[in-house]
Amino acid sequence: MPSRPFSIALLGATGAAGRAVLEVLEDRDVPLSEVKLLATARSAGQEIDFRGEPHKVQAVAPGAFRGCDLALLCAGAEASRAWAPVARAEGALVVDDSAAFRDEAGVPSVVPEVNPEALDLAAGGLVANPGSLAIALALVLKPLQAAAGLTQAVCVTYQCVSGAGLRGVEQLEREASDLMNGREPQPPTRIRHRIAFNLVPQVGEVGADGVSAEEAGLARETRRLLGLPGLPMSATAVRVPVFYGHAAALHLGLARPLAVEEARAALRAAPSVKVLDQPGEGIYPMPMLAVNDDSVLVGRLRADAALPNGLALFLSIDNLRKGGATNLVQLAELLAARRPVA
Amino acid sequence: MPSRPFSIALLGATGAAGRAVLEVLEDRDVPLSEVKLLATARSAGQEIDFRGEPHKVQAVAPGAFRGCDLALLCAGAEASRAWAPVARAEGALVVDDSAAFRDEAGVPSVVPEVNPEALDLAAGGLVANPGSLAIALALVLKPLQAAAGLTQAVCVTYQCVSGAGLRGVEQLEREASDLMNGREPQPPTRIRHRIAFNLVPQVGEVGADGVSAEEAGLARETRRLLGLPGLPMSATAVRVPVFYGHAAALHLGLARPLAVEEARAALRAAPSVKVLDQPGEGIYPMPMLAVNDDSVLVGRLRADAALPNGLALFLSIDNLRKGGATNLVQLAELLAARRPVA
Repeated sequence: MPSRPFSIALLGATGAAGRAVLEVLEDRDVPLSEVKLLATARSAGQEIDFRGEPHKVQAVAPGAFRGCDLALLCAGAEASRAWAPVARAEGALVVDDSAAFRDEAGVPSVVPEVNPEALDLAAGGLVANPGSLAIALALVLKPLQAAAGLTQAVCVTYQCVSGAGLRGVEQLEREASDLMNGREPQPPTRIRHRIAFNLVPQVGEVGADGVSAEEAGLARETRRLLGLPGLPMSATAVRVPVFYGHAAALHLGLARPLAVEEARAALRAAPSVKVLDQPGEGIYPMPMLAVNDDSVLVGRLRADAALPNGLALFLSIDNLRKGGATNLVQLAELLAARRPVA
Repeated sequence: MPSRPFSIALLGATGAAGRAVLEVLEDRDVPLSEVKLLATARSAGQEIDFRGEPHKVQAVAPGAFRGCDLALLCAGAEASRAWAPVARAEGALVVDDSAAFRDEAGVPSVVPEVNPEALDLAAGGLVANPGSLAIALALVLKPLQAAAGLTQAVCVTYQCVSGAGLRGVEQLEREASDLMNGREPQPPTRIRHRIAFNLVPQVGEVGADGVSAEEAGLARETRRLLGLPGLPMSATAVRVPVFYGHAAALHLGLARPLAVEEARAALRAAPSVKVLDQPGEGIYPMPMLAVNDDSVLVGRLRADAALPNGLALFLSIDNLRKGGATNLVQLAELLAARRPVA
């Protein structure tokens, strides 16, 4: 059944996430009756090519969402808090890419391959796109949970600078260029410390309990996407000098023994998961392979001696594609299909 | 009591590890009666400045260790296997920097702050310098073991390219320069895949059980240094685009509850450990801070929800200093002090 065309307004069209959304809309040939590109005043006026046509980016303002079926908000949490209520009031369904509403009770956070049923809860007309690594973890953990039951999960991340937006990309680019040319790099602009040829073990603010916003969110979102509110889970989140593609090491405890070969088979059968696991041949997930892939890559599967029925693995995901824009566009398509026929 | 001068032969003087040893010998003002710099034929003939004097690097050959109190072997496992027996036969005590003998029963592997008593076992006149991250883990885990008892440990690493020697450094340098200048990088020369702006989740060969040599060695060495042969421990080892300084995330289960503040106090009191733990001010371990420090840096201390009495932390160590040359020189000093007085 061909889906009915729908109209969208994309807020944050000039940012890293917004550009990825336009790319995914083109790649998936999503039937759109109208596309309105919006940005905050600072970036308005730019022209962006979409499907071979130049589109002028307009400044977001009250009235901007009127007549749009969907509003895709990709300009960060602050902009989402400001404009989501406006978009709803103007009649648009909202898919929000930021963390602004991810923890709100009435707002479903959805990975279509994992918890599509949660979309039914979108009574308020607002759906949250989960964080990049929560999407990756949910895709990989769901089949393992089904196969052997999760009892505990430790997740340690390697997060690229584009997760901090174009300004993160620019900081790494500038610092790497300065250092390779023997110049002292300028003070950091987006990530708190020098990131080129360094590691920064902080993603988001760190709370009084010593846990960073990313670490807390990753555990909370993963539990929610899997429907396992009591899952004992912890995370360490670290920014690494990689431009595109997040990665993570997972060490899992399982309720029942699961042979590595069975785990591999369960993952091979899972949607939007690609198993790359021939380490002898140098085949395993890496950011350079994840980029532009709409699946999460998983490999390095092996028994884990530290945890009961333990299983360890390594994964990588394009934070701007399936870990961002692709999942967001999937949600937009699902919401649009639910509109009553006019 | 001033220590008696001793003579050394340093094999691998032109490599990354050997150069770091010369730097540490200078920094610590180690009393040396003679220094002989050795290398394989390929690098012999070079001149290296040490304590303000040029030293010609000689090709290693039978007889090269005669008259030396100590042989410091820093030219990799293959060279160590070849030359350690020669050095012993020629009357030198051996401190080996490679992994060649780390698992041999009669060969103690020692971190002086952790298991100095193991030196007594050096009946064969051969001591192994532990791997960089095993040194870091042993220094950090010993006080936590004493305070609350370890029940399990998950270690996920971020390992810099100098851990793969000067050729690792050269690969990252060349690739980063190529990519920053818009050139396609050459095929990798030392690390299996492109490492610039990428991650490679393999350090050492991967066995049939899916575990890499680094991951297996890290668990084995840590258990041995701590004297906890049964400790349930697992690791994920990943190469990252950092030149100098390893890092690791540790997630620990403890036998008894240990408040974060108590853990911090135990670590503050431990030798060769520096606590950097004010994440609100952006203060935590990072490779750029670990470089040239002779302590392991530890921070991001917090409770871990996934493990019983769980504790999580992040650490960084200069792989060429305390995670290499400094520990090796400490071992050389201890061995030299045990020589019978002539």
